[in-house]
Amino acid sequence: MTKFILILSILAIIKIETLEEGENMLNDTIAAISTAIGEGGIGIVRMSGDDSLNILSKIFKSPKDKDIKKIKSYTMHYGFIIDPETNETIDEVIVSYMKAPNTYTREDIVEINCHGGVVAVRRVLATVLNNGARLAEPGEFTKRAFLNGRIDLSQAEAVIDLIRAKTDDSMSIAVNQLKGKLSEKIESLMDRLLGALAHIEATVDFPEDDVDELVINKLNNNLKSLVEEIDYLIKNAETGKILREGLRTTIVGKPNVGKSSLLNALLQEKRAIVTDIPGTTRDVIEEYINIEGIPIILVDTAGIRKTVDVVEKIGVEKSKEYLENADLIIFMVDASRPLEGEDFEIIDLIKHKNVIVVANKVDLPQKIDFNLLKENFSIIVKASVKAEHGIDAIKEKIVDLVYQGKVTTKNDVLVTNIRHKDTLIKAKEIIQKGIETLNSGLPLDLASIELKDGYLKLGEITGDTVAEDIIDRIFCDFCIGK
Amino acid sequence: MTKFILILSILAIIKIETLEEGENMLNDTIAAISTAIGEGGIGIVRMSGDDSLNILSKIFKSPKDKDIKKIKSYTMHYGFIIDPETNETIDEVIVSYMKAPNTYTREDIVEINCHGGVVAVRRVLATVLNNGARLAEPGEFTKRAFLNGRIDLSQAEAVIDLIRAKTDDSMSIAVNQLKGKLSEKIESLMDRLLGALAHIEATVDFPEDDVDELVINKLNNNLKSLVEEIDYLIKNAETGKILREGLRTTIVGKPNVGKSSLLNALLQEKRAIVTDIPGTTRDVIEEYINIEGIPIILVDTAGIRKTVDVVEKIGVEKSKEYLENADLIIFMVDASRPLEGEDFEIIDLIKHKNVIVVANKVDLPQKIDFNLLKENFSIIVKASVKAEHGIDAIKEKIVDLVYQGKVTTKNDVLVTNIRHKDTLIKAKEIIQKGIETLNSGLPLDLASIELKDGYLKLGEITGDTVAEDIIDRIFCDFCIGK
Repeated sequence: MTKFILILSILAIIKIETLEEGENMLNDTIAAISTAIGEGGIGIVRMSGDDSLNILSKIFKSPKDKDIKKIKSYTMHYGFIIDPETNETIDEVIVSYMKAPNTYTREDIVEINCHGGVVAVRRVLATVLNNGARLAEPGEFTKRAFLNGRIDLSQAEAVIDLIRAKTDDSMSIAVNQLKGKLSEKIESLMDRLLGALAHIEATVDFPEDDVDELVINKLNNNLKSLVEEIDYLIKNAETGKILREGLRTTIVGKPNVGKSSLLNALLQEKRAIVTDIPGTTRDVIEEYINIEGIPIILVDTAGIRKTVDVVEKIGVEKSKEYLENADLIIFMVDASRPLEGEDFEIIDLIKHKNVIVVANKVDLPQKIDFNLLKENFSIIVKASVKAEHGIDAIKEKIVDLVYQGKVTTKNDVLVTNIRHKDTLIKAKEIIQKGIETLNSGLPLDLASIELKDGYLKLGEITGDTVAEDIIDRIFCDFCIGK
Repeated sequence: MTKFILILSILAIIKIETLEEGENMLNDTIAAISTAIGEGGIGIVRMSGDDSLNILSKIFKSPKDKDIKKIKSYTMHYGFIIDPETNETIDEVIVSYMKAPNTYTREDIVEINCHGGVVAVRRVLATVLNNGARLAEPGEFTKRAFLNGRIDLSQAEAVIDLIRAKTDDSMSIAVNQLKGKLSEKIESLMDRLLGALAHIEATVDFPEDDVDELVINKLNNNLKSLVEEIDYLIKNAETGKILREGLRTTIVGKPNVGKSSLLNALLQEKRAIVTDIPGTTRDVIEEYINIEGIPIILVDTAGIRKTVDVVEKIGVEKSKEYLENADLIIFMVDASRPLEGEDFEIIDLIKHKNVIVVANKVDLPQKIDFNLLKENFSIIVKASVKAEHGIDAIKEKIVDLVYQGKVTTKNDVLVTNIRHKDTLIKAKEIIQKGIETLNSGLPLDLASIELKDGYLKLGEITGDTVAEDIIDRIFCDFCIGK
């Protein structure tokens, strides 16, 4: 069992090193605007760090001359933010103080609750920065929560998912992840891998025993079921990614076929200017809609056509770019006219992609060749956008495509993050190699090396075993003030 | 002196009636999202009313099973918002409680500090509304602060100015108004008017005394100096309005003269797509810039020209509309070409307005007739936007136009609100009539009636004597959640 303990201590060292590297940056006090920028009743400037209360004491004036340095944790106080240099009143505020370690970052936190609006909040932030705080980097509050051990990495990542959630479903998943459900799942996989490792190490420790066929079989079964579970997580990750990031859906079709009208029908409001003139839509318009909990990023593009208009040409180029990056393409054709040159050009561009064909204007006499369409595409919806016919059918097809018969319940652990998915794929590959080695007749030590790597790989998801640069990359994706 | 007391009691009755009408709506508990909508670290749902803590107790779960109904005022508590019907966790939050009357609204206030982002905050609000709160109307929190007597009307109006402030200067003015500086000024004017009234009433009470020429003279002087002060406030109100609302500045000129480039130069970023093709700018683009503390709303319009393009025509119509409403027009001409038909059409449209002419492309050989321009406009700036020449001169001219030699200091009381300005104009007219009556030889009682009206009119600014419908109109202009 000594080697087993050795593994554990190696793992422990890796973990401690990661944390120590991180802790070099934790000495100063950071500040940022933590509410969304814009017109609002309240705006919050947040500080985190040892010096928070000290900085506040320089710029806060209580009407009762309260000594702000002596206030209790988790209490709020009314007063004014003053520029100590000019004595000018910046804003009427309520400040709150949360003492370490029971805070979001596990450091002292001060929040200045000021009148909303862009200028007020910015001026309060400027005053805080002028008096000793450093502007926080994106996600730095949450990064400190992670580095100080309050949450693990997948929980930290859930915070930004929660903020960016577009629908109730995506939010529920983020809340579950924040509460540690994904972490629990990953940790249970890691535990089982550690169990297998211990088993191998024990066998290696007593080489006088024959390596029992039974032992190998049991290990094989355990590891294979482990791989299956990882596989299940990977398979549902595509749905998870869409629920988290939205389904990038591009509407494409020749000019005047009804693309903008469909966008409007799906949005149920007039967002794009709709006219009868080909080439109306110059700028690419992006909108979010929510179809049964699935966030859809609808992209309306300039009609793809050959054009001499330089400005419009920029739009056409953008359209092709959007087609490349789309998760789903809605291809609109005019059912009242035969397919023509431009349609065929589009078909050529998209025929190997995820496409829903919408045959519009079915209220008019139909002249389109549906067989030709069926040769290239499997999903065709007949619609008359003008008559509000077929819109629900289009929505249904989108939902079917996303779930593809797979059930995703709110209680199931769903991997939504591309980093987690990639890490799972790598962990799976490594563990599979381990299984091969195990069955190759080579010394068991070799298999245990690979399984250890798999263990470390899984640990990257929760941040147990993750390198500093990955952490940096994760948090720079955050918004400022969180 | 009995009549003087009578006036006071009449005024008191007016005030009490206003408040009583208002109080009918104050029985329920209101809720709204109080932070700006968008991606942010923190979002706040705020409740105000007797039932706030009770509603919170239904939907809040403390990890330590704390009894939320027994928490102290001005304290904060960590926990989760739960949907009591489904038991689903909505969000991880920190809630705070401020007990009446020491709160923003003078009612019990609960704030739920949740993770930012659109969906999270909306779901928390929905949960609050499902459990007994009513969605607050725009400005209803501040309206309650006013109706409950914590702030007067001009202070309440300062709250929304503070939120909407575009520059430091406009914010300083709003902060001063919030602190009651405008109210103090108005109240001092009202006090002096009341003094004059008391004087007249005293004279009327003792009709046996001759109405002394000296008394009339003194009254005259007092009232005239009062009118002068009101006049000073009115005169500076134009500057105040611009500092508060921004100077609506429209850039106009024939196609391809450099309008979008000027907009970009002023903004110092590429906001509008700039090409060499006439008619590029289809949508009207609005941007804020800050020139020496003056918020400028720059409106870039579609080139005004006769066009057969229907879509562009919509843009041209909008341009003309913007010209009508502009505080300032920047008229761009091409100095390298003679003035032509389209220029003359524009000159016709704008020659009686506030115009800065920018003669662009002065780096090229100049063919424009400056004398022709000088006949119609007094301010002409030579520029080459491409060569970044003349931009500062344009900015200087804008600043000159706004201040027009008038000094506005941060400590001076500056009327910024159009309602206040209009009310001051009306009050001035009424008091002037009172002065006329005073000097007409008619019974003094008649003058006192007018002066009383003037007093009531001034009181509309602070809300002392304002009618319910005016109050409603003021607060419906607020944002939700304040």
